[in-house]
Amino acid sequence: MEGFLDFIKTRRSIRKYTDRDVSDATLSEIFEAVRWSPSWANTQCWEVVVVRDPVTREKLQDPIGPKNPATRAITAAPVLIALCGRLKRSGFYNNAVTTKFGDWYMYDLGIATQTLCLAAHNAGLGTVIVGLFDHERAGRILNVPQDVELVALIPMGYPAKIGRAPDRRDAADFVHGESF
Amino acid sequence: MEGFLDFIKTRRSIRKYTDRDVSDATLSEIFEAVRWSPSWANTQCWEVVVVRDPVTREKLQDPIGPKNPATRAITAAPVLIALCGRLKRSGFYNNAVTTKFGDWYMYDLGIATQTLCLAAHNAGLGTVIVGLFDHERAGRILNVPQDVELVALIPMGYPAKIGRAPDRRDAADFVHGESF
Repeated sequence: MEGFLDFIKTRRSIRKYTDRDVSDATLSEIFEAVRWSPSWANTQCWEVVVVRDPVTREKLQDPIGPKNPATRAITAAPVLIALCGRLKRSGFYNNAVTTKFGDWYMYDLGIATQTLCLAAHNAGLGTVIVGLFDHERAGRILNVPQDVELVALIPMGYPAKIGRAPDRRDAADFVHGESF
Repeated sequence: MEGFLDFIKTRRSIRKYTDRDVSDATLSEIFEAVRWSPSWANTQCWEVVVVRDPVTREKLQDPIGPKNPATRAITAAPVLIALCGRLKRSGFYNNAVTTKFGDWYMYDLGIATQTLCLAAHNAGLGTVIVGLFDHERAGRILNVPQDVELVALIPMGYPAKIGRAPDRRDAADFVHGESF
């Protein structure tokens, strides 16, 4: 694809949205992209809840708390994506963990998250990844079962305001040659 | 970007590579993309080791073991990327964990991994994410310090053989409406 780096660089965390709704067709395209994310031995532990109901989204503000700048985004966006991971799949073999890191669902959900955010960006949509909230309480509101963890809430909508990108470390700061 | 879904769908796990080398300029472009990945409060915990030395890559085969289909890829590829995460950044505030998940470095490294694999794919390169190995022993070979975890080894090269994509769950299987 042409302009890949520009595409990556123009993705932003978006917390303010226009009134325009997100169609089911657009959401389907985004989830079709998520579907093709790589995962541990192709275990695909991701589960997604699509929340449009304003009552549910209002309830979710409580486990996020008033201090988080994303609290308002949860109800301001037309759609909220709750990203969950099924436990004991990623990193497992024959029901046993295979590495010191135990369950790799956080890693695989990270991969799926970036696919989702980039697919949304490609569709002209803005997202913000919200990880700081009371996961137990939010999970109960969304009826997330015991063997699944709710990890991130991702409001999604057409951007009303696109901010400046926060600074990044230079690549020279994190790239090491041959040895750390 | 046009053809985004096709771009996502044509990324494969690649384990066989041509003899063509990967230039430093191409690697720089890929790391420039990684740089713009989102992360917890922009903490950017990622660290990358670029291993070209065949002796080091041969040593790394041992902690991977002969059973892993990726073992051969580690030495077959012209470049190996070791993806590491600095601890106590992601998910932390004032040196304390903020959620039940503790350190979120696995999640942020998952995001960075997908950026890296897509940027490589965009440059015509193939990658495979290797997570199943003895992380302690491999980390010692690469001199990874105590406050950093080596998480994934990612061989990278121009594909000699592009396989069929393994099947995926339908989106209808993982997308839930309003509630899980």
